[in-house]
Amino acid sequence: MNYQFARRLDAAPESFLDRLFAVSRDPEIISFAGGLPMTSLIDVAGIRDAAAAVFADEGEAALQYTTTDGYLPLREYIAKRYRSRLGIPATADEIRITNGSQQCLDLTAKILVDPCTVVGMERPGYLGAIEAFSYYQPRFKTVEITEDGPDMAAFSSLCREERPAFFYGIPNFQNPSGTAYTDATRRECAECCRETDTIFYEDDAFGELAFDGRPRIPVKAYAPECGVMSGSFSKTVSPGMRIGWIYAPAPVIEKFDAVRQAADLHPNALSQAVIYRYLTTHDYEGHLERVRRVYKKNCRQMCDLLDDLLPDVTHTTPEGGMFMLATMPEGKDSMALFQACLKEQVAVLPGVPFYAEGGGRNTFRLNFSAATEEEIEKGMRQLKQAYQRCGTR
Amino acid sequence: MNYQFARRLDAAPESFLDRLFAVSRDPEIISFAGGLPMTSLIDVAGIRDAAAAVFADEGEAALQYTTTDGYLPLREYIAKRYRSRLGIPATADEIRITNGSQQCLDLTAKILVDPCTVVGMERPGYLGAIEAFSYYQPRFKTVEITEDGPDMAAFSSLCREERPAFFYGIPNFQNPSGTAYTDATRRECAECCRETDTIFYEDDAFGELAFDGRPRIPVKAYAPECGVMSGSFSKTVSPGMRIGWIYAPAPVIEKFDAVRQAADLHPNALSQAVIYRYLTTHDYEGHLERVRRVYKKNCRQMCDLLDDLLPDVTHTTPEGGMFMLATMPEGKDSMALFQACLKEQVAVLPGVPFYAEGGGRNTFRLNFSAATEEEIEKGMRQLKQAYQRCGTR
Repeated sequence: MNYQFARRLDAAPESFLDRLFAVSRDPEIISFAGGLPMTSLIDVAGIRDAAAAVFADEGEAALQYTTTDGYLPLREYIAKRYRSRLGIPATADEIRITNGSQQCLDLTAKILVDPCTVVGMERPGYLGAIEAFSYYQPRFKTVEITEDGPDMAAFSSLCREERPAFFYGIPNFQNPSGTAYTDATRRECAECCRETDTIFYEDDAFGELAFDGRPRIPVKAYAPECGVMSGSFSKTVSPGMRIGWIYAPAPVIEKFDAVRQAADLHPNALSQAVIYRYLTTHDYEGHLERVRRVYKKNCRQMCDLLDDLLPDVTHTTPEGGMFMLATMPEGKDSMALFQACLKEQVAVLPGVPFYAEGGGRNTFRLNFSAATEEEIEKGMRQLKQAYQRCGTR
Repeated sequence: MNYQFARRLDAAPESFLDRLFAVSRDPEIISFAGGLPMTSLIDVAGIRDAAAAVFADEGEAALQYTTTDGYLPLREYIAKRYRSRLGIPATADEIRITNGSQQCLDLTAKILVDPCTVVGMERPGYLGAIEAFSYYQPRFKTVEITEDGPDMAAFSSLCREERPAFFYGIPNFQNPSGTAYTDATRRECAECCRETDTIFYEDDAFGELAFDGRPRIPVKAYAPECGVMSGSFSKTVSPGMRIGWIYAPAPVIEKFDAVRQAADLHPNALSQAVIYRYLTTHDYEGHLERVRRVYKKNCRQMCDLLDDLLPDVTHTTPEGGMFMLATMPEGKDSMALFQACLKEQVAVLPGVPFYAEGGGRNTFRLNFSAATEEEIEKGMRQLKQAYQRCGTR
């Protein structure tokens, strides 16, 4: 049998995520490579009780087919939270429930990207987005991310000269760098998008994980008609239940519904009902505060150990989220570091797959949300051993 | 804001599924238009107990990120069932868990179909497949389905002359017609696929719903390397939990994994664990027998009422599944019937969207799995009223 596959598969990068998840599940290895929220912070008892209540009150509906748009009470909850927390006039009509926010990436590209369409990305940018978009065969154009957000001169040139289908960014505690856009940068991005009819795809997987709990105003607040946002309960409640959402203007939602239905009919009815029940009957704010406190402590610990143990490695200093980016001196190769790390029973993620136009060889991503204090202490010392053993290219 | 959407959206047919689900949820209307399993047959208590056991034993794992391939015990269960029930040597390595079998349709097209690639379909064929495939801009070539399966001369010509990326069929109790391929036709299809290097995509959503409980040997059994099968627990356990699977040769699985990960990372961890627990701790065979008995009774009742009330309408006589296809005399228009039906508070599904190359104007689909005996009795009389009122084109 001679299998003939579609040409779009040639456009996809080698997938790192699988190897990453595989490594992060080997119990012998201390993994800073993955992107898991801390398992012990998942409120298993709370979610169990929410599930029991759903089975008791609405079991049949939660197990039957439902609508493509998603569970209305959950969409209303999300809209209300946008209104009360961020002051933006979201309504349930503009929100659709998805299988995590990863599905938003796939389906947004499906409705916006033809082969050779330009897609704007951050440099470095989220590798899961690069993978999702790649199957629609775009031309990636990247803009460097500084501590303040995208380089605005480059962002403006991109929007004006390349007319991207959209620019994909993570203004809050980006994956992989952990940096956040300043408010001024958000306003400038919005203004530029409005002037150039550019969609700003704002991945807000980490907005609730600001260490200080302070809401940051999204780019979409300053240019609602240009803004497509996605969010997720994966980092805050449970990744395994795969509940995220998209928040977008009506013309985008209409197309999104069509491709969503063709993709897998509708979101998981049980998970939607359970998450909604959990959010409305448990102390979600208290839960978020616990998560933020632990991640802040972990992040500070990791930054301090990096400074102490690897003084010639620079790093970002996140104010939220789950990741930081480390940069080794020029000539160092993070793939070599990755291999050396595995020998020391520790894992970091090489930065290369985050650079859609190449580069980043001397960078690596560190996750600080999954490990305990003891694991961070031990793992960072193992990282130091690996770093010292691995030479320069 | 001027939104520019991708060209692939122009290729998609107007979506009927949403209207269909909307109608099927209006409590005033007796709906034969949808595709819901009977709600009262969903084992809410059994699934509730399975969920409680999962939370007790493996709650953290069921709520955390997991792997793209799916929950190994569930994949092993499915493989074992293929081996014991159908005598085909399936292994867990060849099986991936998906969000219902609809996701298999989307992702299989994603790995196999470029714009203008030929895709073979049954005529009539499942409209959800037509919708899913359409976004990859194929050229559909259809083969008429008879009471024995596809017209073999046309099937053979299609494979030999058009070299389709795959042929999509539902050999067991097809949607929309309810017909099944004979064993001879299955062998002939397999032989032709092997000779022409054609993939046979065998959607087996209904195989467990044979009224007599007798397993039918799949086409894939006769040509394993050509066979891509999909299955689902939506018709047998719970649609709302969105658990289906694909069973395919290794080279297909490898590509499938890559696009699945980009699409939404991995299947719902909680639903997978709960379904597995349910299957292995409850009387699944007894449950299936109950479902088969009710659907058989409903189907017979509906066939008899059609014969009595609408003698000039012909119809298929399914031996399983959830659907039958009715054909009105030439000149009758099922869209007009659909409108007349809504006035009588009953719903049927016009056949047109099942014909990827056009036609089928005088056909409509009837679902017999969702309604009670009383609803079928009443609804069929309302259908008669609607039919008598709606004229000829």
